[in-house]
Amino acid sequence: MAQKPSIPKGTRDFSAEEMGRRNYIFDTIKDVFRLFGYRQIETPAMENLSTLMGKYGEEGDKLLFKILNSGDFLSCVDRCLAESGDYVHLAPKICEKGLRYDLTVPFARFVVQHRNELQFPFKRFQIQPVWRADRPQKGRYREFYQCDADVVGSDSLINEVELLQIIDEVFRRLKISITIKLNNRKVLAGIAEVIGAPDKLTDITVAIDKIDKIGLDNVNAELLARGLSQQSIDALQPILKISGDTDARLAALRRLLEGNETGTLGVDELDFVIASSRHLGLDAVLELDASLARGLNYYTGTIIEVKANDVEIGSITGGGRYDNLTGIFGMPGVSGVGISFGADRIYDVLNSLDLYPEGTSSSVRIMFTNFGHEEATATLAVIKKLRAAGLAAEIYPEASKMKKQIGYADAMKIPYVGIIGENEMAEGKITVKNLADGCQCTLDFDSLLKML
Amino acid sequence: MAQKPSIPKGTRDFSAEEMGRRNYIFDTIKDVFRLFGYRQIETPAMENLSTLMGKYGEEGDKLLFKILNSGDFLSCVDRCLAESGDYVHLAPKICEKGLRYDLTVPFARFVVQHRNELQFPFKRFQIQPVWRADRPQKGRYREFYQCDADVVGSDSLINEVELLQIIDEVFRRLKISITIKLNNRKVLAGIAEVIGAPDKLTDITVAIDKIDKIGLDNVNAELLARGLSQQSIDALQPILKISGDTDARLAALRRLLEGNETGTLGVDELDFVIASSRHLGLDAVLELDASLARGLNYYTGTIIEVKANDVEIGSITGGGRYDNLTGIFGMPGVSGVGISFGADRIYDVLNSLDLYPEGTSSSVRIMFTNFGHEEATATLAVIKKLRAAGLAAEIYPEASKMKKQIGYADAMKIPYVGIIGENEMAEGKITVKNLADGCQCTLDFDSLLKML
Repeated sequence: MAQKPSIPKGTRDFSAEEMGRRNYIFDTIKDVFRLFGYRQIETPAMENLSTLMGKYGEEGDKLLFKILNSGDFLSCVDRCLAESGDYVHLAPKICEKGLRYDLTVPFARFVVQHRNELQFPFKRFQIQPVWRADRPQKGRYREFYQCDADVVGSDSLINEVELLQIIDEVFRRLKISITIKLNNRKVLAGIAEVIGAPDKLTDITVAIDKIDKIGLDNVNAELLARGLSQQSIDALQPILKISGDTDARLAALRRLLEGNETGTLGVDELDFVIASSRHLGLDAVLELDASLARGLNYYTGTIIEVKANDVEIGSITGGGRYDNLTGIFGMPGVSGVGISFGADRIYDVLNSLDLYPEGTSSSVRIMFTNFGHEEATATLAVIKKLRAAGLAAEIYPEASKMKKQIGYADAMKIPYVGIIGENEMAEGKITVKNLADGCQCTLDFDSLLKML
Repeated sequence: MAQKPSIPKGTRDFSAEEMGRRNYIFDTIKDVFRLFGYRQIETPAMENLSTLMGKYGEEGDKLLFKILNSGDFLSCVDRCLAESGDYVHLAPKICEKGLRYDLTVPFARFVVQHRNELQFPFKRFQIQPVWRADRPQKGRYREFYQCDADVVGSDSLINEVELLQIIDEVFRRLKISITIKLNNRKVLAGIAEVIGAPDKLTDITVAIDKIDKIGLDNVNAELLARGLSQQSIDALQPILKISGDTDARLAALRRLLEGNETGTLGVDELDFVIASSRHLGLDAVLELDASLARGLNYYTGTIIEVKANDVEIGSITGGGRYDNLTGIFGMPGVSGVGISFGADRIYDVLNSLDLYPEGTSSSVRIMFTNFGHEEATATLAVIKKLRAAGLAAEIYPEASKMKKQIGYADAMKIPYVGIIGENEMAEGKITVKNLADGCQCTLDFDSLLKML
């Protein structure tokens, strides 16, 4: 009985053409990471559930894909629990492992587990899929790749400067015009302190993170609902209304946070990162955005977010500094800073701007036709020489009708068709047809090589 | 409470050094696949369990990693079943998805699902991890990569010839000396027919597959135990004892199978593949091995197995032709042939022969020391120019003691250390130290670039 084949919802097959485009993105990112001395690691798809649970909040725990224990998974389960229907408590009893949810927690686990083998500062990059049992929707998948670069064991701001250079170089190579938005968590903390609501930092950042989406009035209403006093909200207004260019914003922040130690330190850090980046030069627009908070609440210093200038889409890269990533695994006090490229969104941006270079869909330069045994034998020898010269080439494996063979080359976007028939064999030549313009000529091998 | 971090047994972390070595293998294989016109695809890690179950035998079903349904996984389960403790029947009710077990079944599913978008013959390669709940042991992992190339929709033997060329080229590039063993399932079927036991083909192939391991006498005993008549076993002896070089073996097989249509067709196919390969030239030793059957019973024509000549290890690559891979998904009659490189074993071979080229562990050519803010600013500008020239370079992010900074470069196997201090800044020069011999000189930028 034949099954109608399908794949789980929220997952994707990638065709050869899509892979060509995805590899173009991943290879660009990898090349730049390596240029900056970041080194690749990989971790297993499966982590112990104990490594993953409790790291992403209650909601995150529900979104972890759990792997059923092999064999008699019921054998260690209390019979009452098994019969209770209490699936929330039953799941961790019958599943020891889960699929990784991001690359950050496995990286923290890796650093602590291998601390004695690593050199610090440890600069690593990692490009692997992650899995989330989210409700699938447009642009949101249950399996997707993350591309992360992090350095741990150094609190120097040079790392921030270098990461901004990486972002700039990646998007310069991809020809995507971007704006890099910067903020600093210490600035946010300073703001909370000067408006007299230091304990409401999270509420304030969550609310002002939404300022672009819901507007100032709604943010103020939300702050009130979250328990901020009207006095604090009033004190916050000059900060929410900061405008002008980055220099003006920096100066305004410095003024508003004057006398506040944490906030001023944050302004100093921003100042250093911005000045150093300008000195080195960036193609990207660099913008201080005091409303930038990002959802994750583990950032402790610099916060980075990247937007495409020519396409309306969310953040295509983000990151920041965190001070206690490895603490949960028993290694406190390790400062780190990292960025994560959103490959799927970058893919969408490149598609909508049609920015892929030629040749991402096929690297084959020439396909040879097949007239049968003898001609094929001669053709294979020619192909072997082409390949030895580094040129990707193939022969149509069947001696089918010419139209079918050439149709294959055409569909595969192979630019040239090579023909070695009786005449060519006799003369030791090759006939080459350019599929784009239909031009045809007969050449010897060296001329063919030169042409391709 | 800090957790002691660990990973599930049978899985591995890959360090930067290991990744360098693994990438060297994968990149070599990918480059050769592309040179031959094979195109990369990827499929999701998770497949529907219905796609996977029943494809790998009863034992295989047990080795599938199953993913617990999200949310209330008990809601659709019959209460009696849930309370019965019958885990074998309960598992598929609470798990809809599983991790892929190999790349072959997902590939078959892909071909059938996308049949209308694909050009046939379809030549694809795929390099992704697979997961098996095997008992972990030395050299056997629960997560490991497969590197497969297959062509479907063509029964031309040119595909076999090309796949042998791919194998030859991959191992030539990796500098591993190999023997490619060849057989043909039709020869095995012919043998079963001429010895009067056509219905015992599987028993015969399973038994003679073990001839290297357990010897002729034990194979004969096993054949008897599997129900072969003594007469058939006697008739089989000349075949089991075939010796001599490949030409002699081919001639002996042709003689023994004379008059048997299937067997003679198999000999003809072997003859063509061997003669064509010799004509094109192979670095590898090519050997006809009539005892080669391989475990999988879906091969219908050519059977391929590769061994390293200088290391005692099992098969490092294998493959063959199959005639009905996609039948199970409702697309019968599609012939295919493919090979699979065993990346983990190739890794072991390269390690034991110490065949890695220099530079797989780090691509960084120079690390610059850090004397503090001003020097670092000047250094970053120099590094930016080096990177623009395509040279991987980094700065030590902290202004630590010199010994610590240079120790880092040394541990990272970075060949040069660059120093820009007060003097160098004044003169616009760079001091460079070669860590291998301790030599040191002071250069301008262009000379540095030339040196690196």
